[in-house]
Amino acid sequence: MTTQRIWTAALVVIGDEILSGRTQDKNVAQIATWLNVQGIRLKEVRVVADDQGAIVEAVNALRARNDYLFTTGGIGPTHDDITVDAVAAALGVPVVVHPEARAILEAYYATRGGLNEGRLRMARVPEGADLIPNSYSGAPGIRVGNLFIMAGVPHITAGMLDRLTGQLEGGAPLVSRTIGCWVPESEIADLLAATEKAHEGCQIGSYPFFREGSVGANFVIRSTDQDKLDACAADLIAGLRETGREAVDGGI
Amino acid sequence: MTTQRIWTAALVVIGDEILSGRTQDKNVAQIATWLNVQGIRLKEVRVVADDQGAIVEAVNALRARNDYLFTTGGIGPTHDDITVDAVAAALGVPVVVHPEARAILEAYYATRGGLNEGRLRMARVPEGADLIPNSYSGAPGIRVGNLFIMAGVPHITAGMLDRLTGQLEGGAPLVSRTIGCWVPESEIADLLAATEKAHEGCQIGSYPFFREGSVGANFVIRSTDQDKLDACAADLIAGLRETGREAVDGGI
Repeated sequence: MTTQRIWTAALVVIGDEILSGRTQDKNVAQIATWLNVQGIRLKEVRVVADDQGAIVEAVNALRARNDYLFTTGGIGPTHDDITVDAVAAALGVPVVVHPEARAILEAYYATRGGLNEGRLRMARVPEGADLIPNSYSGAPGIRVGNLFIMAGVPHITAGMLDRLTGQLEGGAPLVSRTIGCWVPESEIADLLAATEKAHEGCQIGSYPFFREGSVGANFVIRSTDQDKLDACAADLIAGLRETGREAVDGGI
Repeated sequence: MTTQRIWTAALVVIGDEILSGRTQDKNVAQIATWLNVQGIRLKEVRVVADDQGAIVEAVNALRARNDYLFTTGGIGPTHDDITVDAVAAALGVPVVVHPEARAILEAYYATRGGLNEGRLRMARVPEGADLIPNSYSGAPGIRVGNLFIMAGVPHITAGMLDRLTGQLEGGAPLVSRTIGCWVPESEIADLLAATEKAHEGCQIGSYPFFREGSVGANFVIRSTDQDKLDACAADLIAGLRETGREAVDGGI
């Protein structure tokens, strides 16, 4: 039996608008889902303010212990967009104007009033960086080694993730299978624990719900091995049946 | 002029389901919004896995530098619910069964099949803890000093926040005002920076959007002082008018 190398990523969500409650973050879920397909596991997320010290601390803590680090937010043209400066400070490199980014922005704004100081801010990158194409508006994302600086607006980030698909080295994708059941999770907690324990390499998460006047739960089994996943699911379904309950493969 | 004490909180969101992308977190936004009303600012959020080491590290890092710390998730009856044990480990106290929590659960499950081992797990608390009533289901939240252990299910957390309203010492509530304008933010970045600089105690966030075929932005001004907020908003509206654009008070 070989031990699989597990590839991990972390995410720093940058923005006062998330911490104030004004904006509902969508990037954690979409980046997590995308990473799973690349065979990379999202290990930790930090949400920090538009504050250089807070960004530097989070970037340095998380890049040291993960294969990849993503940031979202703070790469626009206004005074509160300080991500590039903060990441450069964290890496200990200067900020430079990327010639290709400048050319992209010149072309994009040619019919939109031209480049100005604010717009030129979006051509600034940590020294040594490459660009991640932006399919929807001018300003590109930025890649510096294994650090990816993405937009805050979710659909722009989605476009940038598309451009990165298949480019990051990962392990076996995490697969999952959901077994639903109209049962209070608290009635079958022992069964869940025993089933997980009997199937190494599988984790079972339990997500209760209250619907149509009844309680139920979805049990999500996760593994990097489809055979192990299916064996675990079969045992869980059989175990639920022994308690007199029918499982719903695929979840409720 | 007196310097206002700023009260801060941090939040640890606990759960593999958030990091896998399966579940869209709702607790960051609702806790942030609730904290604003209490005069407490959410400074940082960490999302960590159902992993004791990760929870302990996040809890200890964040409680050391904030007035309050909240956690969400991981307080149910199943094997993956390890928040109480992890928080107790972080605090260096044992886990005990809280007699009142046990009584609540006994009453709740009296007509639902009775207490079992899994359900009794939800009566366990870090030693010295008090309970936060749960308006929707049996298992209570937990308060240990300035640390608040809340449910993961958003409407249950909402009920627990209701019970805590007005009980936490805070400063002046953060107030905000939104000025919308059909303008690309990149055209008026200088105006935003200058306006913020001219109004100490106010922060201006710029949130661009693309709607009805046009680009625009909402500028959110935040302050703990209503007069300063209004003066800043008036200047921003005047500044936008000087560029030939009409501001929409209240946002677009």
